[in-house]
Amino acid sequence: MPERLLEAMKYSVLGGGKRVRPLLAYASSELVGISPEMVDGIAASVELVHAYSLIHDDLPAMDDDDLRRGRPTVHRAFDEATAVLAGDALQALAFETLCTDPILAQHPASQMRVIKWLAQTIGATGMVGGQALDLAAENKVIDEAGLQEIHRRKTGQLIRAAIMMPSELASLSAHQREQLDLFANEIGLVFQIRDDLLEIEQDTATLGKNAASDHNKNKSTYPSVLGADEARKRADEIYNRAITALDTFGTSNKGLKWLAELIMTRSH
Amino acid sequence: MPERLLEAMKYSVLGGGKRVRPLLAYASSELVGISPEMVDGIAASVELVHAYSLIHDDLPAMDDDDLRRGRPTVHRAFDEATAVLAGDALQALAFETLCTDPILAQHPASQMRVIKWLAQTIGATGMVGGQALDLAAENKVIDEAGLQEIHRRKTGQLIRAAIMMPSELASLSAHQREQLDLFANEIGLVFQIRDDLLEIEQDTATLGKNAASDHNKNKSTYPSVLGADEARKRADEIYNRAITALDTFGTSNKGLKWLAELIMTRSH
Repeated sequence: MPERLLEAMKYSVLGGGKRVRPLLAYASSELVGISPEMVDGIAASVELVHAYSLIHDDLPAMDDDDLRRGRPTVHRAFDEATAVLAGDALQALAFETLCTDPILAQHPASQMRVIKWLAQTIGATGMVGGQALDLAAENKVIDEAGLQEIHRRKTGQLIRAAIMMPSELASLSAHQREQLDLFANEIGLVFQIRDDLLEIEQDTATLGKNAASDHNKNKSTYPSVLGADEARKRADEIYNRAITALDTFGTSNKGLKWLAELIMTRSH
Repeated sequence: MPERLLEAMKYSVLGGGKRVRPLLAYASSELVGISPEMVDGIAASVELVHAYSLIHDDLPAMDDDDLRRGRPTVHRAFDEATAVLAGDALQALAFETLCTDPILAQHPASQMRVIKWLAQTIGATGMVGGQALDLAAENKVIDEAGLQEIHRRKTGQLIRAAIMMPSELASLSAHQREQLDLFANEIGLVFQIRDDLLEIEQDTATLGKNAASDHNKNKSTYPSVLGADEARKRADEIYNRAITALDTFGTSNKGLKWLAELIMTRSH
Protein backbone atom coordinates (compact mmCIF):
# COMPACT_ATOMS: atom_id res chain seq x y z
CA MET A 1 0.00 0.00 0.00
CA PRO A 2 1.47 3.40 -0.89
CA GLU A 3 2.91 4.82 2.36
CA ARG A 4 1.33 8.27 2.30
CA LEU A 5 -2.10 6.91 1.41
CA LEU A 6 -1.90 4.35 4.21
CA GLU A 7 -0.78 7.04 6.68
CA ALA A 8 -3.76 9.23 5.75
CA MET A 9 -6.17 6.31 6.14
CA LYS A 10 -4.74 5.49 9.56
CA TYR A 11 -4.70 9.15 10.62
CA SER A 12 -8.38 9.34 9.86
CA VAL A 13 -9.60 6.00 11.21
CA LEU A 14 -7.30 5.61 14.21
CA GLY A 15 -7.25 9.26 15.28
CA GLY A 16 -9.90 9.12 17.96
CA GLY A 17 -13.60 9.58 17.47
CA LYS A 18 -16.40 8.39 19.69
CA ARG A 19 -16.96 5.08 17.83
CA VAL A 20 -20.70 5.60 18.18
CA ARG A 21 -21.57 3.47 15.14
CA PRO A 22 -19.48 0.41 16.14
CA LEU A 23 -20.83 0.71 19.70
CA LEU A 24 -24.36 0.73 18.32
CA ALA A 25 -23.59 -2.39 16.26
CA TYR A 26 -22.24 -4.22 19.32
CA ALA A 27 -25.16 -3.12 21.50
CA SER A 28 -27.49 -4.28 18.75
CA SER A 29 -25.80 -7.69 18.71
CA GLU A 30 -26.53 -7.95 22.45
CA LEU A 31 -30.15 -6.98 21.81
CA VAL A 32 -30.74 -9.53 19.06
CA GLY A 33 -28.88 -12.25 20.96
CA ILE A 34 -25.78 -12.93 18.88
CA SER A 35 -22.14 -12.91 20.00
CA PRO A 36 -20.22 -9.61 19.61
CA GLU A 37 -17.61 -11.35 17.42
CA MET A 38 -20.30 -11.87 14.81
CA VAL A 39 -20.56 -8.12 14.23
CA ASP A 40 -16.85 -7.22 14.26
CA GLY A 41 -16.92 -6.87 10.47
CA ILE A 42 -20.08 -4.77 10.56
CA ALA A 43 -18.69 -2.54 13.31
CA ALA A 44 -15.47 -1.97 11.40
CA SER A 45 -17.20 -1.34 8.09
CA VAL A 46 -19.57 1.35 9.40
CA GLU A 47 -16.69 3.14 11.11
CA LEU A 48 -14.61 3.00 7.91
CA VAL A 49 -17.50 4.53 5.96
CA HIS A 50 -17.94 7.17 8.64
CA ALA A 51 -14.24 8.04 8.47
CA TYR A 52 -14.34 8.27 4.65
CA SER A 53 -17.41 10.52 4.75
CA LEU A 54 -15.73 12.89 7.23
CA ILE A 55 -12.62 13.19 5.05
CA HIS A 56 -14.63 14.05 1.95
CA ASP A 57 -17.11 16.32 3.81
CA ASP A 58 -14.18 18.33 5.21
CA LEU A 59 -12.65 18.99 1.76
CA PRO A 60 -12.29 22.62 0.63
CA ALA A 61 -14.88 22.09 -2.12
CA MET A 62 -17.35 20.72 0.45
CA ASP A 63 -17.58 22.02 4.05
CA ASP A 64 -13.99 23.35 3.98
CA ASP A 65 -13.18 22.49 7.59
CA ASP A 66 -9.65 22.68 9.01
CA LEU A 67 -10.22 20.97 12.33
CA ARG A 68 -11.61 17.55 13.19
CA ARG A 69 -11.29 15.71 16.49
CA GLY A 70 -8.93 18.41 17.75
CA ARG A 71 -6.45 17.91 14.88
CA PRO A 72 -6.03 19.24 11.35
CA THR A 73 -8.39 17.58 8.87
CA VAL A 74 -6.85 15.04 6.46
CA HIS A 75 -6.46 17.46 3.53
CA ARG A 76 -4.70 19.88 5.91
CA ALA A 77 -2.43 17.28 7.52
CA PHE A 78 -1.64 15.66 4.14
CA ASP A 79 -2.95 17.22 0.91
CA GLU A 80 -6.20 17.37 -0.99
CA ALA A 81 -5.40 14.61 -3.49
CA THR A 82 -4.43 12.23 -0.69
CA ALA A 83 -7.65 13.12 1.15
CA VAL A 84 -9.81 12.30 -1.87
CA LEU A 85 -7.97 9.00 -2.40
CA ALA A 86 -7.94 8.02 1.29
CA GLY A 87 -11.72 8.46 1.38
CA ASP A 88 -12.13 6.45 -1.81
CA ALA A 89 -9.93 3.66 -0.45
CA LEU A 90 -11.77 3.57 2.89
CA GLN A 91 -15.08 3.09 1.11
CA ALA A 92 -13.64 0.10 -0.78
CA LEU A 93 -12.09 -1.21 2.45
CA ALA A 94 -15.49 -1.13 4.17
CA PHE A 95 -16.87 -3.50 1.53
CA GLU A 96 -13.71 -5.60 1.55
CA THR A 97 -14.00 -5.96 5.32
CA LEU A 98 -17.52 -7.36 5.01
CA CYS A 99 -16.46 -9.65 2.15
CA THR A 100 -13.47 -11.14 3.95
CA ASP A 101 -14.72 -11.36 7.55
CA PRO A 102 -14.30 -15.04 8.48
CA ILE A 103 -17.24 -15.17 10.91
CA LEU A 104 -19.64 -13.45 8.54
CA ALA A 105 -18.51 -15.87 5.84
CA GLN A 106 -19.94 -18.72 7.89
CA HIS A 107 -23.39 -17.21 7.30
CA PRO A 108 -23.29 -16.44 3.57
CA ALA A 109 -26.96 -15.45 3.14
CA SER A 110 -26.74 -13.00 6.05
CA GLN A 111 -23.36 -11.75 4.81
CA MET A 112 -24.89 -10.93 1.43
CA ARG A 113 -27.80 -9.06 3.03
CA VAL A 114 -25.39 -7.09 5.22
CA ILE A 115 -23.28 -6.01 2.23
CA LYS A 116 -26.47 -4.97 0.42
CA TRP A 117 -27.50 -2.90 3.48
CA LEU A 118 -24.21 -1.04 3.33
CA ALA A 119 -24.33 -0.45 -0.43
CA GLN A 120 -27.91 0.83 -0.30
CA THR A 121 -27.22 2.99 2.75
CA ILE A 122 -24.22 4.99 1.63
CA GLY A 123 -25.00 5.90 -2.00
CA ALA A 124 -26.94 8.57 -3.86
CA THR A 125 -30.26 7.74 -2.21
CA GLY A 126 -28.61 7.61 1.23
CA MET A 127 -25.54 9.13 2.84
CA VAL A 128 -23.98 10.73 -0.24
CA GLY A 129 -27.39 12.01 -1.31
CA GLY A 130 -27.79 13.59 2.13
CA GLN A 131 -24.50 15.42 1.78
CA ALA A 132 -25.59 16.67 -1.66
CA LEU A 133 -28.88 17.96 -0.19
CA ASP A 134 -26.95 19.55 2.68
CA LEU A 135 -24.68 21.47 0.29
CA ALA A 136 -27.66 22.51 -1.84
CA ALA A 137 -29.39 23.91 1.25
CA GLU A 138 -26.55 26.30 2.18
CA ASN A 139 -27.66 29.93 2.21
CA LYS A 140 -31.28 28.83 1.86
CA VAL A 141 -34.12 28.88 4.35
CA ILE A 142 -35.47 25.37 4.83
CA ASP A 143 -38.20 24.12 7.15
CA GLU A 144 -38.06 21.32 9.70
CA ALA A 145 -39.23 18.69 7.21
CA GLY A 146 -36.45 19.63 4.80
CA LEU A 147 -33.88 19.58 7.57
CA GLN A 148 -35.10 16.18 8.75
CA GLU A 149 -34.84 14.79 5.21
CA ILE A 150 -31.21 15.94 4.96
CA HIS A 151 -30.24 14.46 8.29
CA ARG A 152 -32.11 11.18 7.91
CA ARG A 153 -29.95 10.60 4.85
CA LYS A 154 -26.67 12.22 5.75
CA THR A 155 -26.31 10.88 9.30
CA GLY A 156 -29.38 8.82 10.06
CA GLN A 157 -29.10 6.06 7.50
CA LEU A 158 -25.60 4.92 8.49
CA ILE A 159 -26.59 4.92 12.17
CA ARG A 160 -29.68 2.94 11.24
CA ALA A 161 -27.52 0.48 9.28
CA ALA A 162 -25.14 0.02 12.24
CA ILE A 163 -28.12 -1.03 14.33
CA MET A 164 -30.04 -3.04 11.71
CA MET A 165 -27.21 -4.94 10.03
CA PRO A 166 -26.62 -7.14 13.09
CA SER A 167 -30.30 -8.09 13.02
CA GLU A 168 -29.70 -9.78 9.66
CA LEU A 169 -27.70 -12.40 11.56
CA ALA A 170 -30.48 -13.13 14.08
CA SER A 171 -34.08 -14.24 13.92
CA LEU A 172 -36.43 -11.53 15.07
CA SER A 173 -40.19 -11.45 14.82
CA ALA A 174 -41.68 -8.96 12.36
CA HIS A 175 -42.84 -6.86 15.32
CA GLN A 176 -39.40 -6.84 16.92
CA ARG A 177 -37.72 -5.89 13.64
CA GLU A 178 -40.19 -3.06 13.21
CA GLN A 179 -39.57 -1.75 16.74
CA LEU A 180 -35.79 -1.97 16.35
CA ASP A 181 -36.02 -0.10 13.06
CA LEU A 182 -38.16 2.57 14.73
CA PHE A 183 -35.47 2.98 17.40
CA ALA A 184 -32.71 2.98 14.74
CA ASN A 185 -34.41 5.71 12.72
CA GLU A 186 -35.27 7.93 15.67
CA ILE A 187 -31.95 7.70 17.48
CA GLY A 188 -30.14 8.89 14.36
CA LEU A 189 -32.29 11.99 14.34
CA VAL A 190 -31.71 12.57 18.07
CA PHE A 191 -27.98 12.30 17.38
CA GLN A 192 -28.18 15.05 14.77
CA ILE A 193 -30.36 17.43 16.81
CA ARG A 194 -27.92 17.06 19.72
CA ASP A 195 -25.04 17.65 17.27
CA ASP A 196 -26.65 20.89 16.14
CA LEU A 197 -27.27 21.95 19.75
CA LEU A 198 -23.67 21.21 20.75
CA GLU A 199 -22.45 23.70 18.14
CA ILE A 200 -24.23 26.49 20.02
CA GLU A 201 -23.69 25.10 23.56
CA GLN A 202 -19.99 24.19 23.40
CA ASP A 203 -16.73 25.82 22.35
CA THR A 204 -14.28 24.64 19.71
CA ALA A 205 -11.88 23.12 22.27
CA THR A 206 -14.55 20.82 23.70
CA LEU A 207 -15.95 19.81 20.31
CA GLY A 208 -12.60 19.26 18.60
CA LYS A 209 -14.07 20.92 15.51
CA ASN A 210 -15.02 24.50 14.72
CA ALA A 211 -18.03 25.30 16.90
CA ALA A 212 -19.47 27.97 14.61
CA SER A 213 -18.90 25.97 11.42
CA ASP A 214 -22.57 25.51 10.42
CA HIS A 215 -23.47 29.06 11.39
CA ASN A 216 -20.59 30.48 9.36
CA LYS A 217 -21.66 28.49 6.32
CA ASN A 218 -25.24 29.70 6.68
CA LYS A 219 -26.52 26.19 7.16
CA SER A 220 -29.93 25.61 8.64
CA THR A 221 -29.79 23.64 11.90
CA TYR A 222 -32.45 22.49 14.36
CA PRO A 223 -31.77 25.41 16.73
CA SER A 224 -31.75 27.92 13.85
CA VAL A 225 -35.02 26.57 12.43
CA LEU A 226 -36.89 25.82 15.68
CA GLY A 227 -35.05 27.88 18.30
CA ALA A 228 -32.82 26.21 20.89
CA ASP A 229 -35.55 25.48 23.45
CA GLU A 230 -37.90 23.94 20.91
CA ALA A 231 -34.99 21.89 19.45
CA ARG A 232 -34.23 20.50 22.92
CA LYS A 233 -37.90 19.62 23.37
CA ARG A 234 -37.92 17.92 19.97
CA ALA A 235 -34.85 15.85 20.90
CA ASP A 236 -36.56 14.81 24.17
CA GLU A 237 -39.74 13.72 22.40
CA ILE A 238 -37.94 11.68 19.76
CA TYR A 239 -35.57 10.19 22.34
CA ASN A 240 -38.52 8.99 24.43
CA ARG A 241 -40.21 7.48 21.39
CA ALA A 242 -36.96 5.70 20.49
CA ILE A 243 -36.43 4.30 23.99
CA THR A 244 -40.02 3.07 24.23
CA ALA A 245 -39.57 1.04 21.05
CA LEU A 246 -36.93 -1.02 22.88
CA ASP A 247 -39.40 -2.20 25.56
CA THR A 248 -40.32 -5.30 23.59
CA PHE A 249 -36.76 -6.68 24.00
CA GLY A 250 -36.67 -7.01 27.82
CA THR A 251 -33.32 -6.62 29.59
CA SER A 252 -31.24 -7.31 26.47
CA ASN A 253 -31.91 -3.68 25.56
CA LYS A 254 -29.52 -2.35 28.22
CA GLY A 255 -26.61 -1.58 25.90
CA LEU A 256 -28.68 0.30 23.33
CA LYS A 257 -30.50 2.23 26.09
CA TRP A 258 -27.17 3.22 27.61
CA LEU A 259 -25.91 4.41 24.24
CA ALA A 260 -29.11 6.32 23.54
CA GLU A 261 -28.65 8.13 26.84
CA LEU A 262 -25.03 8.86 25.96
CA ILE A 263 -26.17 10.34 22.64
CA MET A 264 -28.64 12.57 24.50
CA THR A 265 -26.20 13.77 27.16
CA ARG A 266 -22.84 13.91 25.34
CA SER A 267 -20.83 17.11 25.51
CA HIS A 268 -18.86 16.65 22.25
CA MET B 1 -31.99 11.04 -5.55
CA PRO B 2 -30.92 14.70 -5.45
CA GLU B 3 -31.37 16.05 -8.99
CA ARG B 4 -27.94 17.64 -9.50
CA LEU B 5 -26.12 14.61 -8.13
CA LEU B 6 -28.09 12.29 -10.40
CA GLU B 7 -27.41 14.53 -13.41
CA ALA B 8 -23.67 14.45 -12.71
CA MET B 9 -23.70 10.66 -12.36
CA LYS B 10 -25.57 10.29 -15.67
CA TYR B 11 -23.34 12.85 -17.39
CA SER B 12 -20.33 10.79 -16.44
CA VAL B 13 -21.62 7.26 -17.04
CA LEU B 14 -23.84 7.84 -20.07
CA GLY B 15 -21.63 10.41 -21.81
CA GLY B 16 -19.87 8.11 -24.22
CA GLY B 17 -16.70 6.19 -23.57
CA LYS B 18 -15.46 3.09 -25.31
CA ARG B 19 -17.00 0.63 -22.81
CA VAL B 20 -13.82 -1.44 -22.99
CA ARG B 21 -14.32 -2.99 -19.54
CA PRO B 22 -17.93 -4.13 -20.08
CA LEU B 23 -16.94 -5.46 -23.52
CA LEU B 24 -14.12 -7.42 -21.92
CA ALA B 25 -16.56 -8.87 -19.37
CA TYR B 26 -18.97 -9.97 -22.11
CA ALA B 27 -16.17 -11.43 -24.24
CA SER B 28 -14.92 -13.25 -21.16
CA SER B 29 -18.41 -14.71 -20.58
CA GLU B 30 -18.25 -16.09 -24.12
CA LEU B 31 -14.80 -17.54 -23.43
CA VAL B 32 -15.79 -19.29 -20.21
CA GLY B 33 -19.08 -20.51 -21.68
CA ILE B 34 -21.76 -18.66 -19.74
CA SER B 35 -24.61 -16.54 -21.11
CA PRO B 36 -23.96 -12.79 -21.49
CA GLU B 37 -26.93 -11.99 -19.19
CA MET B 38 -25.02 -13.58 -16.35
CA VAL B 39 -22.37 -10.84 -16.49
CA ASP B 40 -24.67 -7.82 -16.96
CA GLY B 41 -24.13 -6.86 -13.31
CA ILE B 42 -20.37 -7.33 -13.57
CA ALA B 43 -20.21 -5.31 -16.81
CA ALA B 44 -22.20 -2.45 -15.26
CA SER B 45 -20.24 -2.45 -12.03
CA VAL B 46 -16.79 -2.21 -13.66
CA GLU B 47 -17.99 0.64 -15.89
CA LEU B 48 -19.45 2.47 -12.86
CA VAL B 49 -16.12 2.15 -11.05
CA HIS B 50 -14.28 3.32 -14.16
CA ALA B 51 -16.57 6.38 -14.42
CA TYR B 52 -16.08 7.21 -10.73
CA SER B 53 -12.30 6.92 -11.03
CA LEU B 54 -12.23 9.27 -14.03
CA ILE B 55 -14.31 11.90 -12.18
CA HIS B 56 -11.99 11.86 -9.17
CA ASP B 57 -8.78 11.62 -11.24
CA ASP B 58 -9.83 14.72 -13.22
CA LEU B 59 -10.35 16.85 -10.07
CA PRO B 60 -8.22 20.00 -9.69
CA ALA B 61 -6.38 18.48 -6.71
CA MET B 62 -5.54 15.41 -8.79
CA ASP B 63 -4.81 15.53 -12.55
CA ASP B 64 -6.71 18.83 -12.99
CA ASP B 65 -8.13 18.01 -16.41
CA ASP B 66 -10.82 20.12 -18.08
CA LEU B 67 -11.68 17.84 -20.95
CA ARG B 68 -12.85 14.24 -21.06
CA ARG B 69 -14.52 12.42 -23.96
CA GLY B 70 -14.67 15.70 -25.86
CA ARG B 71 -16.71 17.45 -23.14
CA PRO B 72 -15.96 19.41 -19.97
CA THR B 73 -15.02 17.13 -17.06
CA VAL B 74 -17.65 16.69 -14.32
CA HIS B 75 -16.20 19.30 -11.96
CA ARG B 76 -16.18 21.78 -14.87
CA ALA B 77 -19.70 20.97 -16.10
CA PHE B 78 -21.09 20.90 -12.54
CA ASP B 79 -18.87 21.85 -9.60
CA GLU B 80 -16.14 20.27 -7.51
CA ALA B 81 -18.34 19.19 -4.60
CA THR B 82 -20.79 17.51 -6.95
CA ALA B 83 -17.89 15.77 -8.70
CA VAL B 84 -16.54 14.35 -5.44
CA LEU B 85 -20.01 13.16 -4.41
CA ALA B 86 -20.92 11.75 -7.83
CA GLY B 87 -17.75 9.65 -7.74
CA ASP B 88 -18.49 8.49 -4.21
CA ALA B 89 -22.04 7.55 -5.15
CA LEU B 90 -20.92 5.67 -8.27
CA GLN B 91 -18.56 3.54 -6.20
CA ALA B 92 -21.43 2.61 -3.87
CA LEU B 93 -23.68 1.98 -6.89
CA ALA B 94 -21.14 -0.44 -8.34
CA PHE B 95 -21.40 -2.58 -5.22
CA GLU B 96 -25.17 -2.15 -5.04
CA THR B 97 -25.43 -3.33 -8.64
CA LEU B 98 -23.60 -6.57 -7.83
CA CYS B 99 -25.67 -7.05 -4.65
CA THR B 100 -29.04 -6.60 -6.34
CA ASP B 101 -28.47 -8.25 -9.73
CA PRO B 102 -31.21 -10.91 -9.96
CA ILE B 103 -29.20 -13.34 -12.11
CA LEU B 104 -26.08 -13.15 -9.94
CA ALA B 105 -28.31 -13.72 -6.90
CA GLN B 106 -29.17 -17.14 -8.28
CA HIS B 107 -25.52 -18.09 -7.74
CA PRO B 108 -24.84 -16.75 -4.24
CA ALA B 109 -21.36 -18.25 -3.74
CA SER B 110 -20.17 -16.83 -7.08
CA GLN B 111 -21.90 -13.52 -6.36
CA MET B 112 -19.96 -13.22 -3.10
CA ARG B 113 -16.64 -13.98 -4.82
CA VAL B 114 -17.39 -11.40 -7.51
CA ILE B 115 -18.13 -8.68 -4.94
CA LYS B 116 -14.90 -9.58 -3.15
CA TRP B 117 -12.99 -9.28 -6.47
CA LEU B 118 -14.33 -5.78 -6.93
CA ALA B 119 -13.61 -4.67 -3.34
CA GLN B 120 -10.04 -6.01 -3.47
CA THR B 121 -9.41 -4.56 -6.92
CA ILE B 122 -10.37 -0.94 -6.42
CA GLY B 123 -8.94 -0.07 -2.99
CA ALA B 124 -5.62 1.06 -1.54
CA THR B 125 -3.70 -2.00 -2.78
CA GLY B 126 -5.29 -1.71 -6.23
CA MET B 127 -6.79 1.08 -8.33
CA VAL B 128 -6.76 3.85 -5.72
CA GLY B 129 -3.24 2.84 -4.67
CA GLY B 130 -2.17 3.11 -8.31
CA GLN B 131 -3.52 6.63 -8.57
CA ALA B 132 -1.64 7.53 -5.36
CA LEU B 133 1.60 6.13 -6.81
CA ASP B 134 0.95 7.99 -10.06
CA LEU B 135 0.59 11.32 -8.26
CA ALA B 136 3.67 10.63 -6.15
CA ALA B 137 5.68 9.96 -9.32
CA GLU B 138 4.96 13.37 -10.89
CA ASN B 139 8.11 15.36 -11.53
CA LYS B 140 10.22 12.31 -10.72
CA VAL B 141 12.26 10.07 -12.96
CA ILE B 142 11.04 6.50 -12.68
CA ASP B 143 12.16 3.38 -14.49
CA GLU B 144 10.11 0.88 -16.48
CA ALA B 145 9.50 -1.35 -13.45
CA GLY B 146 8.14 1.60 -11.46
CA LEU B 147 5.95 2.65 -14.35
CA GLN B 148 4.64 -0.87 -14.76
CA GLU B 149 3.80 -1.06 -11.06
CA ILE B 150 1.74 2.14 -11.30
CA HIS B 151 -0.15 1.01 -14.35
CA ARG B 152 -0.79 -2.54 -13.20
CA ARG B 153 -2.60 -1.03 -10.26
CA LYS B 154 -4.13 2.11 -11.69
CA THR B 155 -5.53 0.66 -14.91
CA GLY B 156 -4.55 -2.99 -15.06
CA GLN B 157 -6.35 -4.38 -12.03
CA LEU B 158 -9.83 -3.19 -13.04
CA ILE B 159 -9.32 -4.53 -16.56
CA ARG B 160 -8.14 -7.79 -15.05
CA ALA B 161 -11.23 -7.88 -12.79
CA ALA B 162 -13.54 -7.28 -15.78
CA ILE B 163 -12.08 -10.37 -17.42
CA MET B 164 -11.69 -12.58 -14.34
CA MET B 165 -14.96 -11.86 -12.50
CA PRO B 166 -17.03 -13.75 -15.13
CA SER B 167 -14.78 -16.78 -14.61
CA GLU B 168 -16.10 -17.00 -11.03
CA LEU B 169 -19.43 -18.06 -12.54
CA ALA B 170 -17.94 -20.86 -14.66
CA SER B 171 -15.87 -23.96 -14.04
CA LEU B 172 -12.40 -23.62 -15.51
CA SER B 173 -9.45 -25.92 -14.99
CA ALA B 174 -6.56 -24.52 -12.97
CA HIS B 175 -4.52 -24.26 -16.18
CA GLN B 176 -7.28 -22.37 -18.00
CA ARG B 177 -7.76 -19.97 -15.11
CA GLU B 178 -4.02 -19.34 -15.04
CA GLN B 179 -3.91 -18.64 -18.79
CA LEU B 180 -6.93 -16.34 -18.65
CA ASP B 181 -5.33 -14.46 -15.77
CA LEU B 182 -2.11 -14.12 -17.77
CA PHE B 183 -4.10 -12.63 -20.66
CA ALA B 184 -6.03 -10.37 -18.25
CA ASN B 185 -2.85 -9.02 -16.68
CA GLU B 186 -0.98 -8.47 -19.93
CA ILE B 187 -3.80 -6.89 -21.91
CA GLY B 188 -4.22 -4.24 -19.19
CA LEU B 189 -0.59 -3.30 -19.62
CA VAL B 190 -0.91 -3.19 -23.43
CA PHE B 191 -3.91 -0.91 -22.97
CA GLN B 192 -1.82 1.52 -20.93
CA ILE B 193 1.22 1.52 -23.21
CA ARG B 194 -1.09 2.24 -26.17
CA ASP B 195 -2.74 4.97 -24.09
CA ASP B 196 0.65 6.59 -23.51
CA LEU B 197 1.54 6.30 -27.20
CA LEU B 198 -1.76 7.85 -28.28
CA GLU B 199 -0.92 10.96 -26.29
CA ILE B 200 2.08 11.55 -28.55
CA GLU B 201 0.52 10.19 -31.76
CA GLN B 202 -2.88 11.89 -31.71
CA ASP B 203 -4.28 15.38 -31.22
CA THR B 204 -6.73 16.57 -28.57
CA ALA B 205 -9.71 16.47 -30.96
CA THR B 206 -9.23 12.77 -31.73
CA LEU B 207 -8.55 11.79 -28.11
CA GLY B 208 -11.36 13.84 -26.57
CA LYS B 209 -8.96 14.72 -23.75
CA ASN B 210 -5.89 16.94 -23.61
CA ALA B 211 -3.23 15.21 -25.69
CA ALA B 212 -0.27 16.73 -23.87
CA SER B 213 -1.76 16.20 -20.41
CA ASP B 214 0.82 13.73 -19.08
CA HIS B 215 3.71 15.62 -20.65
CA ASN B 216 2.55 18.90 -19.13
CA LYS B 217 2.33 17.34 -15.68
CA ASN B 218 5.81 15.90 -16.01
CA LYS B 219 4.54 12.36 -15.75
CA SER B 220 6.68 9.46 -16.85
CA THR B 221 5.10 7.46 -19.67
CA TYR B 222 6.23 4.44 -21.67
CA PRO B 223 7.41 6.59 -24.60
CA SER B 224 9.19 9.03 -22.27
CA VAL B 225 10.94 6.21 -20.38
CA LEU B 226 11.67 3.83 -23.29
CA GLY B 227 11.38 6.04 -26.37
CA ALA B 228 8.42 5.71 -28.74
CA ASP B 229 9.87 2.92 -30.91
CA GLU B 230 10.87 0.79 -27.98
CA ALA B 231 7.45 1.39 -26.35
CA ARG B 232 5.74 0.17 -29.54
CA LYS B 233 7.96 -2.91 -29.54
CA ARG B 234 7.12 -3.55 -25.88
CA ALA B 235 3.39 -3.32 -26.60
CA ASP B 236 3.80 -5.81 -29.48
CA GLU B 237 5.67 -8.31 -27.30
CA ILE B 238 3.18 -8.16 -24.46
CA TYR B 239 0.24 -8.27 -26.88
CA ASN B 240 1.59 -11.44 -28.48
CA ARG B 241 2.13 -13.06 -25.08
CA ALA B 242 -1.43 -12.16 -24.10
CA ILE B 243 -2.96 -13.55 -27.28
CA THR B 244 -1.01 -16.80 -27.04
CA ALA B 245 -2.43 -17.41 -23.56
CA LEU B 246 -5.89 -17.62 -25.14
CA ASP B 247 -4.92 -20.58 -27.37
CA THR B 248 -6.06 -23.09 -24.78
CA PHE B 249 -9.68 -21.95 -25.16
CA GLY B 250 -10.23 -22.84 -28.84
CA THR B 251 -12.67 -20.78 -30.90
CA SER B 252 -14.50 -19.40 -27.84
CA ASN B 253 -11.61 -16.92 -27.62
CA LYS B 254 -12.79 -14.92 -30.66
CA GLY B 255 -14.39 -12.04 -28.72
CA LEU B 256 -11.42 -11.47 -26.44
CA LYS B 257 -8.99 -11.71 -29.37
CA TRP B 258 -11.02 -9.13 -31.30
CA LEU B 259 -11.01 -6.80 -28.30
CA ALA B 260 -7.28 -7.27 -27.76
CA GLU B 261 -6.71 -6.27 -31.38
CA LEU B 262 -8.97 -3.25 -30.90
CA ILE B 263 -6.92 -2.23 -27.86
CA MET B 264 -3.73 -2.49 -29.94
CA THR B 265 -5.02 -0.56 -32.94
CA ARG B 266 -7.39 2.03 -31.42
CA SER B 267 -6.89 5.67 -32.36
CA HIS B 268 -8.46 7.21 -29.22
